Amino acid sequence: MIFEYTLKTDHMYMTSITDCVRSAVKKSGVKSGICVVYCPHTTAGITITENTDSEVSSDIMYGLAKSFPNWIGYKHYEGNSAAHLLSSVIGASAVLIVEGCQPILGPLQGIYFCEFYGNQRRKYFVKVIADK
Amino acid sequence: MIFEYTLKTDHMYMTSITDCVRSAVKKSGVKSGICVVYCPHTTAGITITENTDSEVSSDIMYGLAKSFPNWIGYKHYEGNSAAHLLSSVIGASAVLIVEGCQPILGPLQGIYFCEFYGNQRRKYFVKVIADK
Amino acid sequence: MIFEYTLKTDHMYMTSITDCVRSAVKKSGVKSGICVVYCPHTTAGITITENTDSEVSSDIMYGLAKSFPNWIGYKHYEGNSAAHLLSSVIGASAVLIVEGCQPILGPLQGIYFCEFYGNQRRKYFVKVIADK
Repeated sequence: MIFEYTLKTDHMYMTSITDCVRSAVKKSGVKSGICVVYCPHTTAGITITENTDSEVSSDIMYGLAKSFPNWIGYKHYEGNSAAHLLSSVIGASAVLIVEGCQPILGPLQGIYFCEFYGNQRRKYFVKVIADK
Repeated sequence: MIFEYTLKTDHMYMTSITDCVRSAVKKSGVKSGICVVYCPHTTAGITITENTDSEVSSDIMYGLAKSFPNWIGYKHYEGNSAAHLLSSVIGASAVLIVEGCQPILGPLQGIYFCEFYGNQRRKYFVKVIADK
Repeated sequence: MIFEYTLKTDHMYMTSITDCVRSAVKKSGVKSGICVVYCPHTTAGITITENTDSEVSSDIMYGLAKSFPNWIGYKHYEGNSAAHLLSSVIGASAVLIVEGCQPILGPLQGIYFCEFYGNQRRKYFVKVIADK
């Protein structure tokens, strides 16, 4: 069983998807195992970061844009190479451990969908694997 | 069962390994589960990015070299610390969801072996886990 | 079964956790499968890099600090946004393939806990999944 979710994103914005991932793990019926959250887009990604002060995620997006500017010399015709690069740096997936029918997260951790290019309708998948 | 593949790489070049990963998943006989692609080298990595315009992958390598230059102050005697850093930033593995005997990929996604240091003979592993 | 380990960290320092991960895999009794190493903190992460010359890991930390400085413009009240960003760039987990009761590692690879913020007591989890 695979769970698919959709969301509407904003440019250089992180959307919390923690509740949906928790819900998928619960619905899977898996008590102990692992969980993969996967983004099928090449200008977006999945990360885990602090869930209390929303300025953490906006600062991360700000810092990523500063460290990975739109370099002169990029050749891709769509002009969004910086977004593709960020997708590779942050990564297309997050892998979590499942215990007690829940993904294990630190007390300050949340799971986030990262949009690096425009405002779009996006999707992601959640797969849960039992350990036996 | 674990699948091992070898390839000859070029410096700061991404080689598509999508077909080999698809083939490994098919050979594994797993219909539904997850797939891990793993790079056992410390100056290379695995990423997922756009598979249509090859200038995307060359732009990503160009941007990575710009954002992570060979900083004055590196001490490692081999002089390839920038390559080791890129290996950690991009990561040694990619994790995919398997459904219908295939890795789930977005329509524009391919799986790539990233070479950050020289032209070499490299290898990578593919492991597939069923969900039951 | 999930394995939990604690460690005392130093600021911008990588601690090898390879032996603990090997030990967890052995204790799990899993011969063939995968292994997830997970960091539940938002200013730390897990990576895989060279295990022979310790200047590789110190160079990586040096290079990360150079490429991701404490940008003017960060708003998070704790002032540690650069550490949160590094946690997302390096990632909260490493995924390894298990074969012959051991995690597969290249001859030069080790598994490292990366501390991006202060000297702290930290923990991480190891979960092993069999392939059948």
